[in-house]
Amino acid sequence: MKLLEDRIRRDGVVAPGQVLKVDSFLNHQMDVELFWAMGQEFKRLFAGAPINKIVTIEASGIGIACIAAAVFHVPVVFAKKSQTKNIDGNPYQVTVESFTHGRQYQVMISRKYLTSADHVLLIDDFMANGKAMAGLIQLVQMAGATVEGAGVAIEKGFQPGGDAIRRMGIHVESLAIIESMNAETGEIIFKENR
Amino acid sequence: MKLLEDRIRRDGVVAPGQVLKVDSFLNHQMDVELFWAMGQEFKRLFAGAPINKIVTIEASGIGIACIAAAVFHVPVVFAKKSQTKNIDGNPYQVTVESFTHGRQYQVMISRKYLTSADHVLLIDDFMANGKAMAGLIQLVQMAGATVEGAGVAIEKGFQPGGDAIRRMGIHVESLAIIESMNAETGEIIFKENR
Repeated sequence: MKLLEDRIRRDGVVAPGQVLKVDSFLNHQMDVELFWAMGQEFKRLFAGAPINKIVTIEASGIGIACIAAAVFHVPVVFAKKSQTKNIDGNPYQVTVESFTHGRQYQVMISRKYLTSADHVLLIDDFMANGKAMAGLIQLVQMAGATVEGAGVAIEKGFQPGGDAIRRMGIHVESLAIIESMNAETGEIIFKENR
Repeated sequence: MKLLEDRIRRDGVVAPGQVLKVDSFLNHQMDVELFWAMGQEFKRLFAGAPINKIVTIEASGIGIACIAAAVFHVPVVFAKKSQTKNIDGNPYQVTVESFTHGRQYQVMISRKYLTSADHVLLIDDFMANGKAMAGLIQLVQMAGATVEGAGVAIEKGFQPGGDAIRRMGIHVESLAIIESMNAETGEIIFKENR
């Protein structure tokens, strides 16, 4: 998606350790007008899929998921990262390893909000090693729901997540796929538009 | 806001300990169409205020804030609850006590995304003792930005937060204010529409 690639080139910052900072528009400050365009692009890319729910993971997936949900006219469920008073009894629960935070955590979704009747579009801001996305897929499958696809804002194409999720037979659409990036020069190379 | 009050009456669950569960439409599963109507109501209630940014706190405020931001045509900044690789150096930072989680945590916003030029609408899903909202106000004031108001989905009117924030001179608009609720009968009484 050219609009997103241009924005990453303009405002993204490549940091050491293959970290791409996009906190000026994607995951701390959030450019909701850009999110709207991204939601419309997801709508185009998943046209025809009988999506009735969007599932994401807190915290930085929520904004993109909610705006996409406004475009799709479906509700969102976000997977929560820690047990709180507000999740009942016995949620669907998996363990996920975080690239950003360098630790493991539990993610969970209440049984009430994912059922075998659901056709789910998964949304997240980033895909690197794909662990968060794999966790969301597991949660959806535990509920007997159908994964209609996975929509990602930025995929780190040089990390194994995208390929791993695609090998599972999931329809993955990443709006920008980074082929390589260089913290010294700041250069970001995107995979050619498919 | 009658639409929200009706929804709380229909789908909200009163639990012991003055807990109101609205996770079927507000803070786990999220009814984005309802959020859109809430965003329009905030727009009406804060008409005339020169709002150029919405600030919220992760995680459950983000969805409401992003949809409101789409209505207002402004960006969102969400306060983060723990230090991650993705926040630079020396963010604005305060300590907040959580009613829901029963513990203290740090919330922070990067200096880059709040400046003295900003006129901020604060948004959150709940206000009970007002600690999260007070923390957001502190962060905005540390940046020298202007608080134009605080928009809350559900205020627990029998807890001190709303009054405390209003006494600070902040323009608070809560779309539903609960006067009392009863975990045994499930009854919820709202403050009369003003």
